[in-house]
Amino acid sequence: MPGKNIYSDFSREQLCEEQQKLTEIYGEYKAKNLKLNMTRGVPCKEQLDLSDEMLKIDLGGTGEDIRNYGGLLGTDSSREMFRDLLGAESIDEIMVFGNSSLAVMHDCITRSMLFGVYDGATPWSKLDKVKFLCPVPGYDRHFSICEYLGIEMINIKLNPDGPDMDEVERLVNSDPSVKGIWCVPKYSNPDGITYSDAVIKRLANLSPAADDFRIYCDNAYIAHDITENGDELTDIFAELKKNGKEDLLYMFASTSKITYAGGGICALCAGAKNINYISSKVFIQTIGPDKINQTRHALFLKDKAGIKAHMAKHREILKPKFDAVARGFTQNLGGTNLARWTEPNGGYFISLYVPDGCAKETIALAAGLGVALTPAGSTYPYKKDPDDANIRIAPTFPPVSDLELAIDALCVCVKLAYVRDKLKLI
Amino acid sequence: MPGKNIYSDFSREQLCEEQQKLTEIYGEYKAKNLKLNMTRGVPCKEQLDLSDEMLKIDLGGTGEDIRNYGGLLGTDSSREMFRDLLGAESIDEIMVFGNSSLAVMHDCITRSMLFGVYDGATPWSKLDKVKFLCPVPGYDRHFSICEYLGIEMINIKLNPDGPDMDEVERLVNSDPSVKGIWCVPKYSNPDGITYSDAVIKRLANLSPAADDFRIYCDNAYIAHDITENGDELTDIFAELKKNGKEDLLYMFASTSKITYAGGGICALCAGAKNINYISSKVFIQTIGPDKINQTRHALFLKDKAGIKAHMAKHREILKPKFDAVARGFTQNLGGTNLARWTEPNGGYFISLYVPDGCAKETIALAAGLGVALTPAGSTYPYKKDPDDANIRIAPTFPPVSDLELAIDALCVCVKLAYVRDKLKLI
Repeated sequence: MPGKNIYSDFSREQLCEEQQKLTEIYGEYKAKNLKLNMTRGVPCKEQLDLSDEMLKIDLGGTGEDIRNYGGLLGTDSSREMFRDLLGAESIDEIMVFGNSSLAVMHDCITRSMLFGVYDGATPWSKLDKVKFLCPVPGYDRHFSICEYLGIEMINIKLNPDGPDMDEVERLVNSDPSVKGIWCVPKYSNPDGITYSDAVIKRLANLSPAADDFRIYCDNAYIAHDITENGDELTDIFAELKKNGKEDLLYMFASTSKITYAGGGICALCAGAKNINYISSKVFIQTIGPDKINQTRHALFLKDKAGIKAHMAKHREILKPKFDAVARGFTQNLGGTNLARWTEPNGGYFISLYVPDGCAKETIALAAGLGVALTPAGSTYPYKKDPDDANIRIAPTFPPVSDLELAIDALCVCVKLAYVRDKLKLI
Repeated sequence: MPGKNIYSDFSREQLCEEQQKLTEIYGEYKAKNLKLNMTRGVPCKEQLDLSDEMLKIDLGGTGEDIRNYGGLLGTDSSREMFRDLLGAESIDEIMVFGNSSLAVMHDCITRSMLFGVYDGATPWSKLDKVKFLCPVPGYDRHFSICEYLGIEMINIKLNPDGPDMDEVERLVNSDPSVKGIWCVPKYSNPDGITYSDAVIKRLANLSPAADDFRIYCDNAYIAHDITENGDELTDIFAELKKNGKEDLLYMFASTSKITYAGGGICALCAGAKNINYISSKVFIQTIGPDKINQTRHALFLKDKAGIKAHMAKHREILKPKFDAVARGFTQNLGGTNLARWTEPNGGYFISLYVPDGCAKETIALAAGLGVALTPAGSTYPYKKDPDDANIRIAPTFPPVSDLELAIDALCVCVKLAYVRDKLKLI
């Protein structure tokens, strides 16, 4: 946080006093023996309940026998549903898989390592260096895949309108070892920002030095508004097509946070050339996906409008939780200039930025109170937050009363961490 | 086929006459405009119907929330079910995944390519040569995985009691580039043979030159008897444990041919050391499997006894089909010494062996009649049957009346292909 904060003009003595006061409050919270978990973006029971009717749907009479082998690309009805949701032109641009879009992303990258990104491309495992651009803060699971496969990650600053495109263009368009960029274009994890029209248009007009560069676009929150008028996201696939560059895109989506986190379905959206190549490799890997669950989802959610209507029910559950977090931060930290936080219109997370060097300590202090947060650094490649400032808040799972308590407790930890840190430096 | 056959003493003239006669019969079949498919081991509608009660099971009250994220290793109840089926000692030796055991096998091999088989092992992609032993004839999908990943396949003769163990021991115990052997130990695809006690015990006592050698044991038909007293299979995991060699085994199984071919669940069974390593890598790949479908299966099938009872219902449907094929071959080819065929006690396939050099021609002739068979060579690595003699019959999908017609037609093709071939050589 630039500029002065409430403690800026404190003398050493005043800081000591403040530390003592905060330590006392901290002790009071400790005596409560809290057990609150805000670590992961997990839907709560009430959200899961919203889809229980799906399990009772009569699956008969769907024409083809969805119980048998086959259908490598997924059922037509589930492909059509994702086509509508993702704005593709044809189901030829859609493959539908099982319950984990992360697994499909992982597959795309291991496939590139072993076989290359297109027929005849050099497998990445034969290259000295493969690099991915990582807008930060971002999703830890994306970064883990790269880290474990030895892909070098380059941090890209995520501005309120999307990644720093000057830097993205400079690197992508000049360095042939840059093979990908991770993007969560709507309600990014954890900041909750949505890429602007200008950013999407620049992404859709990249001229990569590598002919096997792809945009790994994880559209995990495409339908996940928590305000009535959610953010508008420019259709990157359509923009790429205008530029004749549709082969640059792999787009991923899933129903994990629409129906069931553990029992949903997921999709890959890409140009027909990419889909043809990928399906030729997936053909080696499996006979086909679980078409029963795909059919269940298509019958339950139907299309984009059906998904939108269903997500409105999630919104009712989630809005009070996001509001509680914002309220807690405002009440406890508002006007202190000690921290800033995001107030997204959708997604699953809120980012809290504490003073540089204080995130790890804040999270450790919170853990001491029984308030579990995503480990410090998780939102950065190699788990290294260069500023040690970002804390990811996952408010969806706990009830509002728990959240209120957790945020109050967390704010004490923010202050205590900062005051302690400052005292060390004096 | 060694020895004399019905045509051995035929003169050129007699062969020409026979050819004409067979061509006439062939023409009569052609006029029927048949459309019969025996290409793949696919359950029929009546088999799939057996599990439809499963979709109506009440999933509530299972304790943990199976609808949410988590549970990387699979649900405890489905792990316990597979533990019982596969004879493992503890669910720590079992991971349960989604609908495709082939995908899990593929994953095991790509993981070995990229990361190595254990912590610290050299990734296979960094080695000059990786070899797998392939008992033949075998399952085309196993061979495809190897072929596409550049793994060299070595044919091993599959005897009526299992793979030629002299050759297996010689290669595995001396060549460090031999990293695996594919095994379908019960009702092998396509011969339907079950490995003998002696073969299993020798497999369980291999002393591989490579410390990252594994037995890739696809127990796809472990519960798939089609006679009341099915074959007994010695427990390879228990035998390996006796020898302190349990780390040599990856065993795979699925419910694809128990419940739904497209919507089942599958398992990996291995020593705890392997499971620990594999789950550490799967953790990067996915948040967890579809626990709803796992729970559904565990509630429906319960345990080994439950699976056995359910498979008895499959047996009633399949036995008449396998019998029809055997009957057709006996009636049309019995005593001709032109062909031999297997009469397995379980599994999904029957192997027909025609005279050397005649399989491709027989299958092409059958295709001309509208009788679709698995392409010649498919049961061998690189799709090359060195004898051009093996034809895989998949009798589960068509109704008995279709099967009878298809086998009659096929037998005409066997004879015609042989007579044509013999005439060319005279």
